[in-house]
Amino acid sequence: MEKELVFGHKNPDTDAIGAAIAAADYFKHQGIDTEAVILGEPNEETKFALNYFNLDVPRIIEKADTEKVILVDHNEAEQSVSNIEDLTVTHVIDHHKINFKTDLPLFYHAEPVGCTSTMLYRFYEKDQVEIPKSIAGIMLSAIISDTLLLKSPTTTDKDRRSLEKLAAIAGVDDYEKYGMEMLKAGTNLSGRTNHDIIDGDAKSFEMGGKKFKIGQVNTVDVDEVIHLPGLKDDVKKELEKEGFDDILLVITNILDSNSKGIFFGSDSSAVEKAFNAKLKNQIIDLPGVVSRKKQIVPNLTKEME
Amino acid sequence: MEKELVFGHKNPDTDAIGAAIAAADYFKHQGIDTEAVILGEPNEETKFALNYFNLDVPRIIEKADTEKVILVDHNEAEQSVSNIEDLTVTHVIDHHKINFKTDLPLFYHAEPVGCTSTMLYRFYEKDQVEIPKSIAGIMLSAIISDTLLLKSPTTTDKDRRSLEKLAAIAGVDDYEKYGMEMLKAGTNLSGRTNHDIIDGDAKSFEMGGKKFKIGQVNTVDVDEVIHLPGLKDDVKKELEKEGFDDILLVITNILDSNSKGIFFGSDSSAVEKAFNAKLKNQIIDLPGVVSRKKQIVPNLTKEME
Repeated sequence: MEKELVFGHKNPDTDAIGAAIAAADYFKHQGIDTEAVILGEPNEETKFALNYFNLDVPRIIEKADTEKVILVDHNEAEQSVSNIEDLTVTHVIDHHKINFKTDLPLFYHAEPVGCTSTMLYRFYEKDQVEIPKSIAGIMLSAIISDTLLLKSPTTTDKDRRSLEKLAAIAGVDDYEKYGMEMLKAGTNLSGRTNHDIIDGDAKSFEMGGKKFKIGQVNTVDVDEVIHLPGLKDDVKKELEKEGFDDILLVITNILDSNSKGIFFGSDSSAVEKAFNAKLKNQIIDLPGVVSRKKQIVPNLTKEME
Repeated sequence: MEKELVFGHKNPDTDAIGAAIAAADYFKHQGIDTEAVILGEPNEETKFALNYFNLDVPRIIEKADTEKVILVDHNEAEQSVSNIEDLTVTHVIDHHKINFKTDLPLFYHAEPVGCTSTMLYRFYEKDQVEIPKSIAGIMLSAIISDTLLLKSPTTTDKDRRSLEKLAAIAGVDDYEKYGMEMLKAGTNLSGRTNHDIIDGDAKSFEMGGKKFKIGQVNTVDVDEVIHLPGLKDDVKKELEKEGFDDILLVITNILDSNSKGIFFGSDSSAVEKAFNAKLKNQIIDLPGVVSRKKQIVPNLTKEME
């Protein structure tokens, strides 16, 4: 049988990796020969979760070496493998805005929920397919990661319910305690260069004909991150190096759910309008903003287009 | 509560109308205040089915007068209401290729099945929501229409199973007999002008930067349709009048599942390559071709891009 690779977006986070592992397992039960792969090194948070649930790091690829692929946690070509235009996408499972084009009908399922793994949990449940304990573990980690322990405005009742069910399957008695440990592991910046911090979770978006790069990093002390030596200069350099029009690095406090952003680019007035705040010395205050998908991208898109 | 309109594509066929009626009913059970509407007059086949199951013709609109809408049986802006760019699409249920872009996450479900109503049947079934007898009737009519009584290559086991279940709910003992009556009602061209025949089921596609219009008409005698007085000239006029680059009218025999096409436009060699046949006097032979979605559009797209 022809193998199909299953992967999430570039700069993978815990959902991109967890959903790929879960979808590869789920689609095996549908008779597809799958392999979960990832489009970059896992971050500290994901490494903590994979290690906690005794899962191996999937194979890292940049280009797919199968003809057919399954996309999870993304749909835009910019965020996918480099040869996506040459492949046949057979399935997409995602929870982001859509910018997608195909020549053939396919399976596409998206819901405005907090996490791709939430939809996958519901697929397993509907089909009464048993979820291996370790896979339930990485799926619940993904939900905690994407919803910041159910505190993000992207969180839905489906995420809450799925997290509870998955915690029972994975044998995690206190998911809040586990979740805070995992999120804190993700804020550990030791050993990470400024480039890692800026680019680690960054995604590219097309907005009003411009290329906008948006990174996000979690922390327990926003100002400490902002004042990392050379960080601001390195955000500016990233913009110039890669030919983007705009770049925003969002630094989010996981304890109080507030953020600040470092911005460089040609659209500062759009950014100020999008968040109704002034840039001071390239820094913008983003109180209550934690979700790139639900808060940052739609606000920026509205002003840019 | 804010009302949401539910509609299928322009030049509605039985699935565009049946799926809108079914989805409006289904989403009412999800707590949404819906109204099924249609983007043009129903064709003879759909009128036969609506009448058979005692359903009213939904309100005809060109522009949506609600802020939120639900799309069924289409996703491309070209095939939708004229003000689609100003609206918020909350749900899409479709089985076509995808060319879709949003600013916000939404519910999107597509499967490569023969008919939108098949997916809707499965939604009802999964949620254990009862389907009213008349709605089961229009849904089964949609499956028969889209799959040409399960003979189109788009037909899947899900379509076959859904049709049987819906026939039981609707009290249709012999769906083959009913289906042939319905399809024959659709081939009745009396009272239809050449324009109606060309444009009745036509859809517009963007292919390789060109605008390609593809119409399809069912019949029990292909040559009789081809030789309708003035038809060929009127296909050519349609192309010139509306500023398309190419136009193909596919005439399909529902009894033996063969077609012929009338083509005008600037890409005749792409059309000949797509179907591995020669145009003679603007006519191309299309043996075994019945599905615009699975056979005509992908073949043309491949050659045009």
